[in-house]
Amino acid sequence: MATETREYKVVGTRPIRHDGVDKVTGRALYGADMRLPGLLHGKVLRSPHSHARIKSIDTSRAEAHPEVLAVVTSADLAPTPPTPQMAVLGSPISENILAKGKVFYKGHPVAAVAASSPHVAEEALALIDVDYEPLPAVTNVEDAMREGAPVLHEHWENRPTPGGDSTEGRNIAGFEQHRFGNPDAGFAQADVVLEREFRTKTVHQGYIEPQNATAWWAPNDRLTIWCSSQGHFGVRDSTAKVLGVPVSDIKVVPMEIGGGFGGKLNPYLEPVAATLSKKSGHPVKITMSRAEVMEATGPTSGAHLRIKIGATTDGRITAAHAYYAFEAGAYPGAPLSGANAAIFAPYNIENVQIDSYDVVDNKPKTSPYRAPGAPIVAFAVECVVDELAESLGMDAVDLRLQNAAREGTRRADGVMNLRIGAQEVMEAIKAHPHYNTPLEGPNRGRGVSMGFCRNNTGMSCVVANVLSNGNVSLVEGSVDIGGTRTAVAQQFAEVLGIPVENVIPQVADTDTIGYTSNTGGSGVAFKTGWAAYEAANDVKRQLIERAALLWETTPDQVEYADGALRHASDPELSMTFEEVAGVLPQTGGPVVGRANMNPGGSGGSYAANIIDVEVDPDTGKIDILRVTAFQDVGFAIHPSYVEGQIQGGTAQGVGWAINEEYYLNDEGAMANSSLLDYRMPTSLDLPMIESVIVEVFNPGHPYGVRGVGEANIVPPLAAIANAVHNATGVRMSNLPMNPGAVSKAIAEAGE
Amino acid sequence: MATETREYKVVGTRPIRHDGVDKVTGRALYGADMRLPGLLHGKVLRSPHSHARIKSIDTSRAEAHPEVLAVVTSADLAPTPPTPQMAVLGSPISENILAKGKVFYKGHPVAAVAASSPHVAEEALALIDVDYEPLPAVTNVEDAMREGAPVLHEHWENRPTPGGDSTEGRNIAGFEQHRFGNPDAGFAQADVVLEREFRTKTVHQGYIEPQNATAWWAPNDRLTIWCSSQGHFGVRDSTAKVLGVPVSDIKVVPMEIGGGFGGKLNPYLEPVAATLSKKSGHPVKITMSRAEVMEATGPTSGAHLRIKIGATTDGRITAAHAYYAFEAGAYPGAPLSGANAAIFAPYNIENVQIDSYDVVDNKPKTSPYRAPGAPIVAFAVECVVDELAESLGMDAVDLRLQNAAREGTRRADGVMNLRIGAQEVMEAIKAHPHYNTPLEGPNRGRGVSMGFCRNNTGMSCVVANVLSNGNVSLVEGSVDIGGTRTAVAQQFAEVLGIPVENVIPQVADTDTIGYTSNTGGSGVAFKTGWAAYEAANDVKRQLIERAALLWETTPDQVEYADGALRHASDPELSMTFEEVAGVLPQTGGPVVGRANMNPGGSGGSYAANIIDVEVDPDTGKIDILRVTAFQDVGFAIHPSYVEGQIQGGTAQGVGWAINEEYYLNDEGAMANSSLLDYRMPTSLDLPMIESVIVEVFNPGHPYGVRGVGEANIVPPLAAIANAVHNATGVRMSNLPMNPGAVSKAIAEAGE
Repeated sequence: MATETREYKVVGTRPIRHDGVDKVTGRALYGADMRLPGLLHGKVLRSPHSHARIKSIDTSRAEAHPEVLAVVTSADLAPTPPTPQMAVLGSPISENILAKGKVFYKGHPVAAVAASSPHVAEEALALIDVDYEPLPAVTNVEDAMREGAPVLHEHWENRPTPGGDSTEGRNIAGFEQHRFGNPDAGFAQADVVLEREFRTKTVHQGYIEPQNATAWWAPNDRLTIWCSSQGHFGVRDSTAKVLGVPVSDIKVVPMEIGGGFGGKLNPYLEPVAATLSKKSGHPVKITMSRAEVMEATGPTSGAHLRIKIGATTDGRITAAHAYYAFEAGAYPGAPLSGANAAIFAPYNIENVQIDSYDVVDNKPKTSPYRAPGAPIVAFAVECVVDELAESLGMDAVDLRLQNAAREGTRRADGVMNLRIGAQEVMEAIKAHPHYNTPLEGPNRGRGVSMGFCRNNTGMSCVVANVLSNGNVSLVEGSVDIGGTRTAVAQQFAEVLGIPVENVIPQVADTDTIGYTSNTGGSGVAFKTGWAAYEAANDVKRQLIERAALLWETTPDQVEYADGALRHASDPELSMTFEEVAGVLPQTGGPVVGRANMNPGGSGGSYAANIIDVEVDPDTGKIDILRVTAFQDVGFAIHPSYVEGQIQGGTAQGVGWAINEEYYLNDEGAMANSSLLDYRMPTSLDLPMIESVIVEVFNPGHPYGVRGVGEANIVPPLAAIANAVHNATGVRMSNLPMNPGAVSKAIAEAGE
Repeated sequence: MATETREYKVVGTRPIRHDGVDKVTGRALYGADMRLPGLLHGKVLRSPHSHARIKSIDTSRAEAHPEVLAVVTSADLAPTPPTPQMAVLGSPISENILAKGKVFYKGHPVAAVAASSPHVAEEALALIDVDYEPLPAVTNVEDAMREGAPVLHEHWENRPTPGGDSTEGRNIAGFEQHRFGNPDAGFAQADVVLEREFRTKTVHQGYIEPQNATAWWAPNDRLTIWCSSQGHFGVRDSTAKVLGVPVSDIKVVPMEIGGGFGGKLNPYLEPVAATLSKKSGHPVKITMSRAEVMEATGPTSGAHLRIKIGATTDGRITAAHAYYAFEAGAYPGAPLSGANAAIFAPYNIENVQIDSYDVVDNKPKTSPYRAPGAPIVAFAVECVVDELAESLGMDAVDLRLQNAAREGTRRADGVMNLRIGAQEVMEAIKAHPHYNTPLEGPNRGRGVSMGFCRNNTGMSCVVANVLSNGNVSLVEGSVDIGGTRTAVAQQFAEVLGIPVENVIPQVADTDTIGYTSNTGGSGVAFKTGWAAYEAANDVKRQLIERAALLWETTPDQVEYADGALRHASDPELSMTFEEVAGVLPQTGGPVVGRANMNPGGSGGSYAANIIDVEVDPDTGKIDILRVTAFQDVGFAIHPSYVEGQIQGGTAQGVGWAINEEYYLNDEGAMANSSLLDYRMPTSLDLPMIESVIVEVFNPGHPYGVRGVGEANIVPPLAAIANAVHNATGVRMSNLPMNPGAVSKAIAEAGE
């Protein structure tokens, strides 16, 4: 379904990915595959306490071990830079990499060793003597905001919560408020006002490949790091800050990445491996275990929310108010801004207020997770919208359509909408057979939900080298997580009218390609695709000049179309791309295309789900019967990969909805830090997810791309809750909706 | 000594090389350092005969060995492409890599194996059964041209030598003649005509690092090769031809190189390692032993020459004629064209004829060697010029100065001289204290000689990425043999007025940077330096645009000087390079400079030596007492590296003059294929060589660079012969002038 028709030959098709054979034959090199002469192995000593003061660290016994070549603690990192912000908040990145003074969660790194083998390194951790003073811990956002709660960062000032429950807010790291229109007047106009409370739990990104880093700090003070990340330039810049060295001293080489979903943006091991390398004089590799990944890397926030929406009896939403507090974990950084952008994004509401809080507690520092913040707030809002439709006696999609956000209306965070696809996605739901086929059978229900992600852009560079046989090597700086080597190559090939198989894409290190921002915010097909488009046009311009030289004419007399150059007024004169590539040496030398840019105009993406469930009334287990996932992607460069993104995000949303959570024991330690116990959906838990690509071209991109990676995780949470209500009459307001929670809610409703 | 003065801050200085620490600490990675998971080791089976027909090769026993994973012969390479030239000459590159039908020299590769270890591979060679029919061999150029000589390539037509000794020329691969003016009339005008005959032996480039190659032919048919070469693009292109695959299927990664001197331009092991990798499914590494290097890689030609020069009594050279035949080794390719350019290059002679022959014989195929061909012909000519001066009773330098080539005169190969430094180099000799200090003591003598190398250029690409702290990563395609990372970075830094230490140069693989021609022909500081200059100007242009944006003005109102941007009319507004580098994200994104070019105008370089020797009259041993080496380098970007080139080339010339040769036994096998027996000069054999840099700016280059790597090897051969004559009265007309040859000549002169 597309808003307009365009004639393309390469974009919009489904070629085999360039890196496919390497990956299916096990030859692609991941960080853990790194081998170097003289390589040492590092291991990290982690806090056994959720909250404790470090009274002393004695590394002397470990240092005396004959096979231990280096031991590091936070004393080996650069001193915290004395910026005003840092004085208040500390240096979250550095102190999260190696704790300083206090530990804030079980798993918080305290020290690390490098030894001749991983086994020796692991044993040597026991030789580091840390004297802790355990402190009371607080492990959820409501407790953390309560008066008298244990305080994590004792030097922070009190920041009481104006819209919240507490008069004492010494764990509050940030507060964002957005308000426009007149919410009080808006609610006064409403015939129905619903206010509901929701809670969600901490969940993890759940990538398959654990974090890893190999570092070699050479005698010339040049540091090379090989690692798996969502952005090697970001890793370089952060590592430089943590180590107190210039960015130009560090080269980061991107290895293949086995999933990130936002959890591989920040460095964890890189500065540690680097410091161990410097102290030992050897390259050092560290890889995390699964438990380390779960306990010490990037979950996203658990949250507490209250949503209030008012509407008139004819279905006009007049006002909305949201209060929410997000866990940040040990250091500030909950995804408030993504949540604030997404919360009411599908709707045009004139009177809005949001009060949002970033709250630290004794858990790992949170990290972005696919559409950061959006699934949490959309869960709450879409449940309320569903209930509102019920209250008004309206079809839930009709209510949404009536209030759909459009170009020129404003999001809750005040941003004016450009051309967006909220309405088109809602119409796609209504038109779909799934929506129009009745669901039959007992204990079954259907739910619908909308979702949004603003998407992002950033700096990007592409260099294209024309080879003598008419192929092109394409050098880019965007780490390829979801097939972007091919999606970027397609945009390049389209401009030049050459087969995408003739383009050889590669992701280059930080010294080789210009600064390219992270692979995140669904931005790569947008920004690096655009850079490839510009680089291809740069190649085209040069080829036209070469043909003009050969034909003894001016460039304006040369036309380029369908992969060939033609003389505008002499039909005898033409050359294919391959032919001109063969005569470059004689016409001035090699041709290199180049683009370095920071394009604006990435377009927000709307997603929606129709989900059918069956709820076992005895056990409370939810079976997912059918899922149709809609998303406005702007333009699908490679529809198969777009469908894969939609399916993957939907699956993650389903896991978040019905099973996933950090389950803590009484000491605040995670009791389910393995993929057996941390229950992500498997293929047995899910039906085939049908993807419906909606294409509302983004006028801000040469091929209409919006970015597709994130919005799809947003709708499942509320769609399932709404389906459970449809099946059982029970409204689930807390996640996860696991069998225990659902059966308890059914039992309470029956009381 | 320079023809003009220019004000520079970075070029012309002597910074520490960027790769210095890596190299002195042993951390730089050379091809032999390659390790890959599952790596196999290859060994090459070589012909024990100088000339033989291969009746059959049976590899079945080797293939049956449990630890042998692949065996290859020429049958595994691509069929010889059916071009007309190939039909006549065969496919020298391919057949030299794995012999087909016949072997032409001892050491000619016949087959190769890949096995679990180098030792197993070596043992397994004995399991390959080759049935040879030995043939009579011919191992020098005069024998090869004689009537009835053994014929190497039996399908070649007869090409008798018009100026030579033979009526049968079935070993003659090529003939080049140049003639202008009227030589007969010129000789008729002469008062003195000398005609002399000379012979030189086969010598090797003598690089320290043996050839090596590691190849991984992945299941997706993409082949990656890591090797040491003077040009990874050339290796890629040649390997593609030999394997019959498109260039775009191959990526060549340049490792550090331990010397080349022309001997590492052509592939030897790369297609073999690649084919073994394809057949075994593993990566395969092959490294050569020293004996393999000597017996089967790139020596330069032994030669036979006759030089005739006529002059008037007042010192005007009226005519010159040269006949010479160069050994090509097993396949065509003796360096005739370099010889023809160099032979009379120091002089302005109106009537010239050259007859030059490329002749195959049963030795390894020759490869270019530093100033290819020039030392051989200059040896002969400069000896004759010295004798001519003696005959005319003139100072030998005055005779040269009187006949010096100048801008607008013509070289023997017909090329018109642009701005050249022949005269300036001769004047530098005359002005030097060495020339003006009498040499005292018995058996001592002084010789002078000129030399020339035309130098070369080619395609070159540079990409420059501006880092946020004002450093710049510089990506180039030129393999760094003599410090060119730094010499290229200096030319980049000069344009932008930044310290060269802030530039991070790296040599990228064939997929990452645009086509860059070989590191040869003294071309890198010229062509890649120029590309860096253009890339820096591209950066400058973009920075000016950024400053204009920030200052809300037009680019023409922004000036760039001394590493800073200034508003032309508002003195308050200025930013350093570092400052503007820090605000690129806000002004449009990263800045990447780029240059892709094929610049003409590389300037020929003249060199000269004054050498003092002492000859032991009993043993004939020559002691080198003092060497002063002069060279016009255009402009010395990094004077220390220029001096190093001058010293290195001079040392190689000395070795060629007095010791080096392929010493063959009766079977045509090399009897001195080790560095102990192949006698290159050591530090004990040489005094400190004084380098005198002459700078006659090349008007064809932005910094006046000519290229410096080669001309310096040319003068020592004749300078030493002339010094020996000065010491002993004996004229040595054959190389090497080893103790046996010199004592014999002295004895014969005394008879």
